[in-house]
Amino acid sequence: MQNFNISIIGAGNIATHLAINFTKKGHLIEQVYSRNINNAKILAKKIKANPINNLANLKTNIDIILICVSDSAIIEVVNQLNFRSPLIAHTAGSVPMQALNKFDSFGVFYPLQTFSKNAKLNLNKVPFCIEANSEVNKKKLIDLANSISNNIFELNSEERLQAHLAAVFANNFSNHMFAMAEQMLKKHKIPFDILKPIILETATKIQQIPPQLAQTGPAVRNDIKTMEKHLALLTSQHLENLYSFVSQSIQNLKNQ
Amino acid sequence: MQNFNISIIGAGNIATHLAINFTKKGHLIEQVYSRNINNAKILAKKIKANPINNLANLKTNIDIILICVSDSAIIEVVNQLNFRSPLIAHTAGSVPMQALNKFDSFGVFYPLQTFSKNAKLNLNKVPFCIEANSEVNKKKLIDLANSISNNIFELNSEERLQAHLAAVFANNFSNHMFAMAEQMLKKHKIPFDILKPIILETATKIQQIPPQLAQTGPAVRNDIKTMEKHLALLTSQHLENLYSFVSQSIQNLKNQ
Repeated sequence: MQNFNISIIGAGNIATHLAINFTKKGHLIEQVYSRNINNAKILAKKIKANPINNLANLKTNIDIILICVSDSAIIEVVNQLNFRSPLIAHTAGSVPMQALNKFDSFGVFYPLQTFSKNAKLNLNKVPFCIEANSEVNKKKLIDLANSISNNIFELNSEERLQAHLAAVFANNFSNHMFAMAEQMLKKHKIPFDILKPIILETATKIQQIPPQLAQTGPAVRNDIKTMEKHLALLTSQHLENLYSFVSQSIQNLKNQ
Repeated sequence: MQNFNISIIGAGNIATHLAINFTKKGHLIEQVYSRNINNAKILAKKIKANPINNLANLKTNIDIILICVSDSAIIEVVNQLNFRSPLIAHTAGSVPMQALNKFDSFGVFYPLQTFSKNAKLNLNKVPFCIEANSEVNKKKLIDLANSISNNIFELNSEERLQAHLAAVFANNFSNHMFAMAEQMLKKHKIPFDILKPIILETATKIQQIPPQLAQTGPAVRNDIKTMEKHLALLTSQHLENLYSFVSQSIQNLKNQ
């Protein structure tokens, strides 16, 4: 395995998880940039890197620079970088690779996962979606991803945006269903704990069974009586609309 | 621990999981009823019980009869039972306990979990929601639940229906979000495998962090640019409506 010298722009959740895992695998993190020098220092200290808060101080005699800032902040960062090499990659799902085309060597290194700063996360099953402007650069990014994960996908920018959109449904929207359930239970002083096992089992089940086949519940059974009982319990027009809309969507998918 | 003699009406997923776990813990399953004698035989064989397909043959000199049929089939079963004892309980989330009030001793033994026939499932964390028409009967059902699970809740019929409704959001609706994601990826020939880790992490995260706090994504950040990119990718009016509706709901919840 090749070891790389890497600098990281960003000190948030993705930056932290990647930097720590890279260091564990023998890569060297040179610099960590954050607008807020204290955030840069917190991460830099964990991985024995140098914290900076001025992009002009970024060294370019290294192998790879990773931009680990939010999707919407990437352009602003890129506008402040006045070099053409080394290889630079961003880690965003929704930003086209061409956002980096002012550099000679560029690509994308997108981990399709939800990162929380405090949750310990083993990256070795995390899907890394790789794209680059040349075969040589692609190989470098794949080598880097392979050093921390067994789950590499080569996706172009369009496919990556599709995967990102699908992840919004699979992660953001499903989490919102958990949040609505939590809110309903709270009104009746039933602890949310009561749903934790079924939520974990729902996610575990689709590791083996395609979700469309795993679908259960009154909507897919067209159990109108139970659906009417549920609708009668809902305490707002918004919740009723959400219940009806998603139930209808379940039935549409079944009948396709 | 007290061992009970139990008969089970039904031979589906819940019946199977309960019967096997009861037997493991030393309870004796006397009879298994199914309209289809072959289904009764398949389960009965696993647990050395007697299969029957006529409810008139149900023996009543036992401790507990459990009705493990779908919510909508309970009344039909009850109408065919012409005895007043022993203690009888159903396992449904949405059916009031009073559906059994023609018996002397009755209650509810509702496991709040999604059961698949083939998925092996450890029941010891499954929430069992217990209700009964007397303290003595409640104690019996709690003792039975305690023998296979550490996670017992005493809920009345109204609370149980609320929990069942919340579970529809947490399980059925979130699974539907997975199914929609699967469908989108299929159109672009991206394997659904790419989402399995994020789905598992989403469910794992809320074991520790309340879902409302765990919410991420463009909607909760009000990242309009990314939401517009996503909407432009969606290939049907229905998907656009679903995306907008759930995104709006995420924003409503945030602003409450």
